[in-house]
Amino acid sequence: MSKKIIFNAFEMNCVGHQSPGLWKHPRDRSWQYKDLNYWIELAQKLEKGFFNAFFIADVIGYYDIYNDNARAAIKSGAQIPVNDPLQLAGPIAHATKHIGIGVTASTTFEHPYPFARRLTSADHYTNGRIAWNIVTSYLDSGAHNIGLPDLGDHDERYEIADEYVRVIYKLLEGSWEEGAVERNVETGVFTNPDKVHDIGHKGKYYTVPGIHLGEPSPQRTPMLFQAGVSPRGQRFAAQHAEAAFISGPEKSGLRDIVAGIRKHAKEYGRDSYDVVVFALATIIVDETDEKAQVKYEEYSKYVDRDGALALLSGWTGVDFAKFKPTDRTNTINLGAGSTFVDALTHGVERDWTVEDVIRWVGIGGPGPVFVGSAKTVADTVQKWIQDTDIDGFNIAYAVSHETWEDVIKYLVPELQKRGVYPTSYKDGTLREKIFGYRYLPDNHPAASYRDIEKVKKEEAE
Amino acid sequence: MSKKIIFNAFEMNCVGHQSPGLWKHPRDRSWQYKDLNYWIELAQKLEKGFFNAFFIADVIGYYDIYNDNARAAIKSGAQIPVNDPLQLAGPIAHATKHIGIGVTASTTFEHPYPFARRLTSADHYTNGRIAWNIVTSYLDSGAHNIGLPDLGDHDERYEIADEYVRVIYKLLEGSWEEGAVERNVETGVFTNPDKVHDIGHKGKYYTVPGIHLGEPSPQRTPMLFQAGVSPRGQRFAAQHAEAAFISGPEKSGLRDIVAGIRKHAKEYGRDSYDVVVFALATIIVDETDEKAQVKYEEYSKYVDRDGALALLSGWTGVDFAKFKPTDRTNTINLGAGSTFVDALTHGVERDWTVEDVIRWVGIGGPGPVFVGSAKTVADTVQKWIQDTDIDGFNIAYAVSHETWEDVIKYLVPELQKRGVYPTSYKDGTLREKIFGYRYLPDNHPAASYRDIEKVKKEEAE
Repeated sequence: MSKKIIFNAFEMNCVGHQSPGLWKHPRDRSWQYKDLNYWIELAQKLEKGFFNAFFIADVIGYYDIYNDNARAAIKSGAQIPVNDPLQLAGPIAHATKHIGIGVTASTTFEHPYPFARRLTSADHYTNGRIAWNIVTSYLDSGAHNIGLPDLGDHDERYEIADEYVRVIYKLLEGSWEEGAVERNVETGVFTNPDKVHDIGHKGKYYTVPGIHLGEPSPQRTPMLFQAGVSPRGQRFAAQHAEAAFISGPEKSGLRDIVAGIRKHAKEYGRDSYDVVVFALATIIVDETDEKAQVKYEEYSKYVDRDGALALLSGWTGVDFAKFKPTDRTNTINLGAGSTFVDALTHGVERDWTVEDVIRWVGIGGPGPVFVGSAKTVADTVQKWIQDTDIDGFNIAYAVSHETWEDVIKYLVPELQKRGVYPTSYKDGTLREKIFGYRYLPDNHPAASYRDIEKVKKEEAE
Repeated sequence: MSKKIIFNAFEMNCVGHQSPGLWKHPRDRSWQYKDLNYWIELAQKLEKGFFNAFFIADVIGYYDIYNDNARAAIKSGAQIPVNDPLQLAGPIAHATKHIGIGVTASTTFEHPYPFARRLTSADHYTNGRIAWNIVTSYLDSGAHNIGLPDLGDHDERYEIADEYVRVIYKLLEGSWEEGAVERNVETGVFTNPDKVHDIGHKGKYYTVPGIHLGEPSPQRTPMLFQAGVSPRGQRFAAQHAEAAFISGPEKSGLRDIVAGIRKHAKEYGRDSYDVVVFALATIIVDETDEKAQVKYEEYSKYVDRDGALALLSGWTGVDFAKFKPTDRTNTINLGAGSTFVDALTHGVERDWTVEDVIRWVGIGGPGPVFVGSAKTVADTVQKWIQDTDIDGFNIAYAVSHETWEDVIKYLVPELQKRGVYPTSYKDGTLREKIFGYRYLPDNHPAASYRDIEKVKKEEAE
């Protein structure tokens, strides 16, 4: 196996992330999310374990489907309060040398023009270690608070997102030519104006006539992450993403999604392996299988059931307050189109009750929980990668920082011993570390906007 | 004199800020703006000189009035490229203990709902050392790039800004009651939902029905800065600002503006001195008057004339390419309403040519340049404060970091010797350091939104 396994820390700028209620655990630190030291110390630990990146989720909105209000989410601290993830990038980067910082930002809440500057700035401040996790949002409560009736049609959100990212490509790839910034003290030219171009974008959703505000950053377009396994989401990932994040309880379902993304990538003229795929997993590892199992059971006692149901209801759009714990999920109409519903219904071979689902998602969310000794979990990790063709995992926490500390202490050395996990970082930007190239490759749609004058001519025809 | 003089560093996340072309100076570091170390090292130096805060300006847009294009600005690096200022707050705060970070953000480019979360997050990460410099923007190029025909009417921009800040107050002061976050491991309550309120905002420009996303931060509403000396801007400052930033070449003009702000503050039910006022100044100080003068003349050689005219044209809305260097400014119709025009026409007793104005604004922008030994400059600083009733200065740079290094090396000790400048920092948040209280006081409009249920009832009537 020449490709090494990729681990990311799946985080969110909030309390407990996908383990609602576990902030009550005496060793949990996730409630310190509003203190930069929480993040910096974690980043430094992860870097010692050769983690590829943070994958920082985000929502603008809150979970108010359950019981038709947000009380359960508020009470249990389930992803509310939640802070701005982007502001973590600089502090983390400054305190580390290698780890990437994947930051979620929605195409729904900020116009692409000012957002493009945020990306360029973050890429400068992190020396090319930023990734943008592109999402279209799923909580209508967020839309309400910017004066919209709702988030709109799911597939149209992806149409908007498609134009959004193309505006970003035009600004970041096309507006400032390579070498535009001369900083020549003899001629007095800071930037050569002949090499800075209006992008002249006039689309269905956005009008952006002018130039980008920032000078080219180490990666230009930050590495592109995407999460979302709906059919439309898969196509979006196959077209634009360099890393796709998927989740589901069973290997069979993940395998189908990975195959779909890789197939679609080829259809879009990319290589199947131009997209690395991360699957969600929570890993509870200790010296022995028994100790790990005891730890898992101990963690489970702290799950806040209402918090879990609030998240579940938000992810599916279905109010789980209407169901009894013994109701079977295959009799519940879960709607369709959300990441979570797809995860739940994709290759789930078990016929679960609501109670089973709570237990499932209460620790780390809608992915598998691997529990055991280093050897046991290493076997499982390798098996999943082999059977699904994923490239690695976004590892959620039960207790932060402890879950990752255990992974680094027990699992990482075992995987390194087997020769399947990195023992050092590669140099360069986040994209270079993963793919070996610095900018998006020529077969990526962003590349077609580099000659922006040609694009403008073509679009005018 | 019991009140101590306040110094801020007037910065911007770009090259040369208000000294176009001085990036060519061999000792200038401002072109390193995209490296966090530039900012962190500067912050640590400023803190040794007991500077109150950074005052970080910003524009979303570029200067394209001069010759009807942005070429001169691009070529000279005049405020383009320009990065996101907000992302500097965390890294600066983490590397320092006391200095405040005033960050400019416009009410034109982001909806107040997600922006409120950015403020709360920044206030957490800086432990209450963030200030928001509220601006309404003045470059139409920015508006064009978010699909607007222009920025709209100047006074209406302030009406929008007024509603914008009230939405922010409702979210930051009213939505989460004091003590809402319980984090009680016994009861399992992270936040008491009875103490988190929908703000129910339905205004002319914004609809924000729900709750704030963030938990209360050290200052709740960050300290409020405001810049803008138009009559409408002065009223806005008098009503909302805790620190007003003004600029002008002459004491007489500044004195009138300060008196206006203090008078209006009283009319709005505040104390005249609830608003501290900073004036723009550039300070070139050295061992002797002669050495300082030599340094000033040496700096002046690096001014980029086209860059200065590009800035001047953007500030005034008047294309200075139409005029000869010998044309007199009192024969040029400068329009009205912009900060700069007001600065230029307020108490300017000199009849200046365009050439004079270039020389004036080319080093540090539209404020005075104080040149001399520590003793000379200290006399001037004290005289200006005495004659205008300002509280201190936003000190622009000619050469960064050098301009501030000189201030700290020469001027600060002289002022300290005279007992008029701080010799230590007070503890607490930025607001506490300046005013001694942590939250906005009861006579500030924000306070009226703390009982949000009462507000909703009143607004419904």
